[in-house]
Amino acid sequence: MIYSNTASVGQLRAETHAAVMEFINSYKENNFYISGYKKGWEKVEQCRSKISELLQNKLNSVLLYTSTTDAMSILLTQLRLKEGSVVAIPKEYFPSIGGIKLSFEQMKYKVVEIGNDKGEIKVEDIQDLKIDVLLIEWVNYWNGYKNNLKDLSHWCRKNNVIFAVDAVQGVGSCAIDFDIHDIDFFISAGHKWLRALEGAAFAVVSERMNSLLKQTIFGYNSFSDRNQYDCKNRHINHSLLRFELGTLSGVSFISLHSAISELLNENYNNVVTKLKQNSFAITQHLLSYGAIVHSPIVEEKCTGIVSFTLANIDTLEIYNKLLEFGVIAKIRNERIRLSPDATVNLENLLQRLNACLKGIL
Amino acid sequence: MIYSNTASVGQLRAETHAAVMEFINSYKENNFYISGYKKGWEKVEQCRSKISELLQNKLNSVLLYTSTTDAMSILLTQLRLKEGSVVAIPKEYFPSIGGIKLSFEQMKYKVVEIGNDKGEIKVEDIQDLKIDVLLIEWVNYWNGYKNNLKDLSHWCRKNNVIFAVDAVQGVGSCAIDFDIHDIDFFISAGHKWLRALEGAAFAVVSERMNSLLKQTIFGYNSFSDRNQYDCKNRHINHSLLRFELGTLSGVSFISLHSAISELLNENYNNVVTKLKQNSFAITQHLLSYGAIVHSPIVEEKCTGIVSFTLANIDTLEIYNKLLEFGVIAKIRNERIRLSPDATVNLENLLQRLNACLKGIL
Repeated sequence: MIYSNTASVGQLRAETHAAVMEFINSYKENNFYISGYKKGWEKVEQCRSKISELLQNKLNSVLLYTSTTDAMSILLTQLRLKEGSVVAIPKEYFPSIGGIKLSFEQMKYKVVEIGNDKGEIKVEDIQDLKIDVLLIEWVNYWNGYKNNLKDLSHWCRKNNVIFAVDAVQGVGSCAIDFDIHDIDFFISAGHKWLRALEGAAFAVVSERMNSLLKQTIFGYNSFSDRNQYDCKNRHINHSLLRFELGTLSGVSFISLHSAISELLNENYNNVVTKLKQNSFAITQHLLSYGAIVHSPIVEEKCTGIVSFTLANIDTLEIYNKLLEFGVIAKIRNERIRLSPDATVNLENLLQRLNACLKGIL
Repeated sequence: MIYSNTASVGQLRAETHAAVMEFINSYKENNFYISGYKKGWEKVEQCRSKISELLQNKLNSVLLYTSTTDAMSILLTQLRLKEGSVVAIPKEYFPSIGGIKLSFEQMKYKVVEIGNDKGEIKVEDIQDLKIDVLLIEWVNYWNGYKNNLKDLSHWCRKNNVIFAVDAVQGVGSCAIDFDIHDIDFFISAGHKWLRALEGAAFAVVSERMNSLLKQTIFGYNSFSDRNQYDCKNRHINHSLLRFELGTLSGVSFISLHSAISELLNENYNNVVTKLKQNSFAITQHLLSYGAIVHSPIVEEKCTGIVSFTLANIDTLEIYNKLLEFGVIAKIRNERIRLSPDATVNLENLLQRLNACLKGIL
């Protein structure tokens, strides 16, 4: 079988698997809690600097959450703008944005949907609008189209627009071709292209948000003396870390720590290049069979996601046929989505696609 | 070493360890995502019914969150009562309650601290007060004192008071001697007395809260068609499940599913009785050495937590001495807290306590 569904859940690297095992096995150790377990939780804290390293972040705060949705919903719900403020979101989005859209509407912000039906938003789509917040997806979850964060972030900074990005389909698959400090909320999770376990997500938040967030949701981690549970006169953390709530899934962040470390060791840009090349090769292959490709077809624009359909053939039939030929894909938006990670045996995958498509067509 | 810190983190049972391993190993499987991984996630969904089974719940909704704090902060922040509503909380509490207290104050509720300085609240403490919400801890985190949920829940129901319980130190260590349907928010987590991994928590919420919660925080799981990511015209779930946000830590809930299943197999009440007997034996032992015990000293009132100090001896010195004699304890509220789980070798623990106390005194 060839796994081609990283856009849902990535497979752990051998090293990450080992790091997880080590932590899980520490529960069996004679000196549980004071050795392996403790070391594991040290990695959870070190995870913040690994995330910063990955994103070349020097100044923004790294906050840890369980999922992209949690991070986005918890943080953006506490963004207090004037009634009637305008929030622009893409026309095509994953339901995480659908969730926060409802919160925004309740806060009496005006939500406008812009860009094209692939989720792409360009500066020309916003430059004539009077907006206060731009919330986009870096890479669309079903069609793989990628937005230009550099251009958009520059425009937002210049126009004093808050810029928030759901980056979950881009981190680990696309080049960091922007300055993280120009983005106000950069939110992502570990269990897709970073290849960690579910349960580890993060938000990189710019310091200027400190005055625009009005805290309404507090957790025990909101206090500055985090490890001091006993002090009655606790102080709220001055830093943005006050927006973190409760105990995290340690094992998930241990896996994320390992996953990012390994990705940096491998050289991030090599992984990105490989994914782009693979997606382009798959796309070319599909086109040669007359498939309709819904993801980018130019190599430069390719990300990790390839989306296709076959004229007059039911998508579920293609999905099942792929499975029969040993390819694990996913149906998203009624299209087949292929998203193998960079370690895929491309030749083998193309052979299977060959055989499968020949069998169908 | 003898681990005596379950009130912080419980050790996994062998079966739970195996269930976790199986899931983690599924990431390496040839057919990743369609076999072991999928089966694992089925357990996450089954976890709701296991939680219900444990608490003899038939009617209330079981919502899944990452931590007790997350569950409490996310849910209770969305409780919309009239300005000036009165919320009673205990005098002594873990900072999770400190967090939600700040939210309540922001919502312009009046927060009053009641009961004694061990965190105990009795019906007589509230019967003359005009309160709208009672938020308590079932068992206090450092001194092990337990509140009577049956009496308090009956009084709250009769007086139309919303009753919320942080139960994290009671679930898995105390008898379910109340009717869960009389409690509006029963919130707990898996990584202490239930002996699961961190990252799995739950809230059992009464249906009557459906009309008192006004949703302001939405996630992709708030939609009724949870597995349908592509539909633009999504509907908000009518059930309380709409208050769940994003992707959970699968491995944590798989461990919780196993942990509760095993606990039920072992017979919950036997575990409770064992913990009570052990705590009482430890208490007797400590008293015989002239220790000052801050947790309950009557067997009937004992829970899993024993708290003590020694006159004129620094607590950190006791802690280090215990470690030297192979006992892993914890300092909480400047006292030594012992909280071994029911599988502890009691004789061995008492011997070590003996040796340690003799060495100090």
